[in-house]
Amino acid sequence: MTAFTREHLLGLEGLSLEELMALIDTASSFREISERDIKKVPTLRGKTVVSLFYEPSTRTRTSFEIAAKRLSADFVSISASVSSATKGETLLDTARNIAAMRPDCLIMRHSAAGAAHFLAQRVPCPIVNAGDGAHEHPTQALLDLLTIRDHVGRLDGLDVAIVGDILHSRVTRSNVHALKLLGARIRLVGPPTLLPAEAAAWGEVCYDIRSGVRNADVIMMLRIQRERQGRNFFPTLEEYSRYFCLTRSVLQEARPGVVVLHPGPINRGIEIASDVADGPDSLIMDQVTNGVAVRMAVLYLLAGGVDDEAAA
Amino acid sequence: MTAFTREHLLGLEGLSLEELMALIDTASSFREISERDIKKVPTLRGKTVVSLFYEPSTRTRTSFEIAAKRLSADFVSISASVSSATKGETLLDTARNIAAMRPDCLIMRHSAAGAAHFLAQRVPCPIVNAGDGAHEHPTQALLDLLTIRDHVGRLDGLDVAIVGDILHSRVTRSNVHALKLLGARIRLVGPPTLLPAEAAAWGEVCYDIRSGVRNADVIMMLRIQRERQGRNFFPTLEEYSRYFCLTRSVLQEARPGVVVLHPGPINRGIEIASDVADGPDSLIMDQVTNGVAVRMAVLYLLAGGVDDEAAA
Amino acid sequence: MTAFTREHLLGLEGLSLEELMALIDTASSFREISERDIKKVPTLRGKTVVSLFYEPSTRTRTSFEIAAKRLSADFVSISASVSSATKGETLLDTARNIAAMRPDCLIMRHSAAGAAHFLAQRVPCPIVNAGDGAHEHPTQALLDLLTIRDHVGRLDGLDVAIVGDILHSRVTRSNVHALKLLGARIRLVGPPTLLPAEAAAWGEVCYDIRSGVRNADVIMMLRIQRERQGRNFFPTLEEYSRYFCLTRSVLQEARPGVVVLHPGPINRGIEIASDVADGPDSLIMDQVTNGVAVRMAVLYLLAGGVDDEAAA
Repeated sequence: MTAFTREHLLGLEGLSLEELMALIDTASSFREISERDIKKVPTLRGKTVVSLFYEPSTRTRTSFEIAAKRLSADFVSISASVSSATKGETLLDTARNIAAMRPDCLIMRHSAAGAAHFLAQRVPCPIVNAGDGAHEHPTQALLDLLTIRDHVGRLDGLDVAIVGDILHSRVTRSNVHALKLLGARIRLVGPPTLLPAEAAAWGEVCYDIRSGVRNADVIMMLRIQRERQGRNFFPTLEEYSRYFCLTRSVLQEARPGVVVLHPGPINRGIEIASDVADGPDSLIMDQVTNGVAVRMAVLYLLAGGVDDEAAA
Repeated sequence: MTAFTREHLLGLEGLSLEELMALIDTASSFREISERDIKKVPTLRGKTVVSLFYEPSTRTRTSFEIAAKRLSADFVSISASVSSATKGETLLDTARNIAAMRPDCLIMRHSAAGAAHFLAQRVPCPIVNAGDGAHEHPTQALLDLLTIRDHVGRLDGLDVAIVGDILHSRVTRSNVHALKLLGARIRLVGPPTLLPAEAAAWGEVCYDIRSGVRNADVIMMLRIQRERQGRNFFPTLEEYSRYFCLTRSVLQEARPGVVVLHPGPINRGIEIASDVADGPDSLIMDQVTNGVAVRMAVLYLLAGGVDDEAAA
Repeated sequence: MTAFTREHLLGLEGLSLEELMALIDTASSFREISERDIKKVPTLRGKTVVSLFYEPSTRTRTSFEIAAKRLSADFVSISASVSSATKGETLLDTARNIAAMRPDCLIMRHSAAGAAHFLAQRVPCPIVNAGDGAHEHPTQALLDLLTIRDHVGRLDGLDVAIVGDILHSRVTRSNVHALKLLGARIRLVGPPTLLPAEAAAWGEVCYDIRSGVRNADVIMMLRIQRERQGRNFFPTLEEYSRYFCLTRSVLQEARPGVVVLHPGPINRGIEIASDVADGPDSLIMDQVTNGVAVRMAVLYLLAGGVDDEAAA
């Protein structure tokens, strides 16, 4: 019945349009569970979901944890700071050890691009990539798409501006794969130092935010990492903000009905003005709510899908 | 049926006597669950309880976690050291993000007085204050009151001595609000440097522990933070101990049947002698046991109470 | 029905052969739960299992957590780095506080030999020793024995070589107690600096790995702690590896059908060659899988056994 039958979710690159829509539609159908009085279904009862994060992340880990628990799965969280990583064990050995405990799904975040793909070929367990270096972050892109569809009413043929630190952004790479499949016209906006060479292949490159967001249906803002300040990427946060902050004035260049997204956590007054973040065009909180639904869908499809077929 | 119908539990200040007794009576009724062979009721099944702690706390967090799980709620723990706090996100944005994942209750601890009140006005989610600066710590005071009632047999008209670091004590402020409502005569006992100016409005101020605990029905000892040593509050732990440690000799000044409380963790031989802490008048372990019951009651009233009415 | 009726599992020293086999047989029977599609039984529903770890451990804590959850127990994890240990509370006070919250089992790891025994005499709660200094680590030894029995077909009269850092190895002490009960001939192999004086009482001491593993049915490799390098135990990892690494060549000295165990995490190329660790004689992954079953059995026997009798 569902068009998504892969064993892993490693990225959005290479997915068919049907697979992409199956993920988004499944997420959409899971959304109402979190609005119920009893926010729990027995779908993944008796399944073990393990998260293995080599980078700190409260937001993504919490979203996956709530998603797993609302599906009645057991959730076990492993963070690298307390893991065997410090004892010199290889990533593969750590993952094999976890797999030997028979989890039904392994959610992983790692600073190395390709880490999730590497394990998926070697470990007998469904893997969800929750971020690998600057490579992909598929669940974040899926929640962006679900949020856009809710508010714009469609996903095809959109004008999308992605603004900020494109260079280090894994969610941008995931979004670009999906948006191109959906026929979007993409503009990548930021200072030259934060625009990778490959950006020209993804869409139109733009160094000016006003022309960058002009006539956009969707503006995806990216977070500026404060620690990049003064390290060849941009001189100071103030300087960055003067040229690339999304203000109400800049927002007027976009198309009426434009929606603004941000993966969070936001830097108020740096990449996004407070009145825009909290304004009527901002979908930032909807993104967070949809994030739980997307993760429920992904866990369901990876850890529960096969059993459902078997049960049918 | 219950007299406690507030959306949040931010403090004991401003509660009516009826509300206070409703909380204590509900806690008392939940106590037997933890004495059962099967320590679990389905009351909060399908509810999500999130704890957001900006200060380290094993004891309080564990007590809330066990309380939530014995009510069948899903419990998600977020600690500030791994949270987005380090990424520069505001407290309000962090809380809004959590609220967007649709928790049924948010338990928070923060070093800033008023943090819980601030969020309660801005976030659409029941909030339990688990300690805000030196302001309030209502569940700790409630478990004190439940423990006193169990062992003294009543809560009205008691002579209560609170001894130690009054200045930094949030549980003292919570207890003072409740005890005054209950008609207690309160004595605040400690060195002048640890007694805030406002203490004179709470009760009788006393710089000598022997006269401070004289004829007391209840002695509430407070923990001395070792890190305050030599920082204008008191010269050394030894010096503090010589004048303010609760010893068996000091204890004889109190009324027969006196009970001794301490929020823990205790510093043996500093603010309390070991034979007193482990003696027949000490209720310290009862406080811990009652803590789980109080937190079950609070979570039930905030996260489950409304639904029960709806179901009735 | 079961021959294991102790209140605690503090070590394998002093267990009878019947008790030992009851533990292993119970573990064996729990194993198939983790191979099911729905990996969960209601055995410990409504029970609270608390882990209190004063040393970091992802692997053992995760194994216990998955074991507890597959038995439907509530699992609460307390790690010392965030616990009251830093506030000066004694181990006993911390444990008493936890016990006052009415857990059904306390799993503890501590750097001090005897810590679990100390608490077992003072705290009214079943205790599982998950490692106390260099003293015992009984669940690790039990999973070794279960794994050996699966693959060798028997546990009695085996020739067992234990190789490496015997001095600091708690699992070795647990294994020695059990193996002697089972009539094994034990050889302790390593550099003199890593062989404690007592080793001579456990079996034959051997400073050469080739003669050490000769005709062995079982080789138990131990992990080398990198931080011991250059600190009087051995000069460098390279030097250690040259003399004590288990290579394919060394392995040929052993009996045909030999099995190789390692408690993990492994140091590839230091105490064990990669092709041996990943080779057909290695049972390292089976050990991890069996670890969950052993911990399910132990939690069941300590936290659920009495109730079963009551229910029978």
